[in-house]
Amino acid sequence: MTLQGDWFVERHIESGSAFSLKIKAKLVDEQSPYQHIEIYDTETFGKLMTLDGYIMLTERDNFLYHEMMTHPVLFTHPDPRRVLIIGGGDCGTLTEVLKHTDVERVWQVDIDERVTRLAEFHFPELTDSNSDIRAHLLFENGIEWVEDADPDSIDIIIVDSTDPVGPAKGLFTQSFYAACYRALNPSGILIQQSESPLYHLPLIKMMHAEMYASGYHDVRTLNFPQPVYPSGWWSATMAGKGVELSGFRESDVRGKRFSTRYYNADIHRAAFAVPEFMRQALKQG
Amino acid sequence: MTLQGDWFVERHIESGSAFSLKIKAKLVDEQSPYQHIEIYDTETFGKLMTLDGYIMLTERDNFLYHEMMTHPVLFTHPDPRRVLIIGGGDCGTLTEVLKHTDVERVWQVDIDERVTRLAEFHFPELTDSNSDIRAHLLFENGIEWVEDADPDSIDIIIVDSTDPVGPAKGLFTQSFYAACYRALNPSGILIQQSESPLYHLPLIKMMHAEMYASGYHDVRTLNFPQPVYPSGWWSATMAGKGVELSGFRESDVRGKRFSTRYYNADIHRAAFAVPEFMRQALKQG
Repeated sequence: MTLQGDWFVERHIESGSAFSLKIKAKLVDEQSPYQHIEIYDTETFGKLMTLDGYIMLTERDNFLYHEMMTHPVLFTHPDPRRVLIIGGGDCGTLTEVLKHTDVERVWQVDIDERVTRLAEFHFPELTDSNSDIRAHLLFENGIEWVEDADPDSIDIIIVDSTDPVGPAKGLFTQSFYAACYRALNPSGILIQQSESPLYHLPLIKMMHAEMYASGYHDVRTLNFPQPVYPSGWWSATMAGKGVELSGFRESDVRGKRFSTRYYNADIHRAAFAVPEFMRQALKQG
Repeated sequence: MTLQGDWFVERHIESGSAFSLKIKAKLVDEQSPYQHIEIYDTETFGKLMTLDGYIMLTERDNFLYHEMMTHPVLFTHPDPRRVLIIGGGDCGTLTEVLKHTDVERVWQVDIDERVTRLAEFHFPELTDSNSDIRAHLLFENGIEWVEDADPDSIDIIIVDSTDPVGPAKGLFTQSFYAACYRALNPSGILIQQSESPLYHLPLIKMMHAEMYASGYHDVRTLNFPQPVYPSGWWSATMAGKGVELSGFRESDVRGKRFSTRYYNADIHRAAFAVPEFMRQALKQG
């Protein structure tokens, strides 16, 4: 069959698959200095933002990604106060981080201000913490920002980027992981989105190797569903500078004062379970 | 964009989404007495079988579904010997069940013999246990078969059906769950595929209510990735006739003599973690 009517179609070349959403209207079609930004109103997923033709997020299911990029790492760290987000221009990650009242300062460094300005208009629930006095929105090159950061000055670095091609490619390198390592406190943790466990296992394996080679003490991948990304199954990889990542502040999760839609203490533990094919791939070094 | 070349497109109307696979060739296009069966060779997912235009399985990722429909329930039951599969004509579930050497007898009751015969030719790795002397392949109506079964005669019933429309609709009813309850041993367990946690939460909630109303002591839903099904995120719901489902034979999982690609003891535990939105929906009764 073919798709009748208006659909946004994302073809994922490596996997020979495509994901499509039925759209009601195109709301934004803009070329920023960095990328092609489009926003659509869909039939059933609320608003959709794409960058260079790739789905970034929808209103309906972004809670999965944004909760899992933030709460597991924040509840793993013993006392997160200073957080750096690289990328994350839609501000969904920032909003989740700011729900942690012990966090004192968050820098969000995304090169493309237009993503943030458009998100403020079209995705207000992701951006309504942008005026929080703890939030510092910087529109700069994230790699350079980390290289210039004071050593041992940051508790958590969250890399919320696009795929490891084009502008985000430099974020998936050993030199970047080493710069993050230098900027992190001894108990600091780096977390980075690491694509699909089914489609991108070689990338995940490479990230583990390069993170360990950069000096991190413990590296673990967590998995979660994300229906609008290729395979519907996504991952993030955490690297602890000088700490084990096996425990977390479980009583703080159970007593948290903010609501979540996916994350809870059981989901935290579950996300770190390693599928058999991944366990075998990672142990082969 | 539009999809260039040959693609199989499955449109999921309720969710306003579509999933597509690039195809190299159509191998089978057959109308059985019950449904339209098609088999394709895809670019990257191996062979693909569809029924009435809906994706049933691909060679690449069916291990997720088939492992999670079988090993969690078999390792939860203390001593599974007599297993009934309703549906499951592709025989992938049967093959996984037969990996458990303590299982003495498996009945597979699927109404459509053509699915099985075509699977035997095109998906040999799913069907190479069909000649196992413990396997009894019956091409009959599964609901009637359960209604006629001796009371307290079966340890595990696995309902591996299509969506709850058309021929499978009667498998998602309280009268069917009651018939299964009667056929199960006191320590028996029913497990049924229960669609997408994101798209079909009302169905899952209804299944819990009807299973409890049929007398089952404990009902739990387990989640797992399944990229070719709508949302890429799937579930199965287990109901214990007279037993709690919280424990499992963990040491037997760790010592199992057969290999798996997704399932292991950590994944078993993780699959039962309940996302916050599901926890809230289910507790509302």
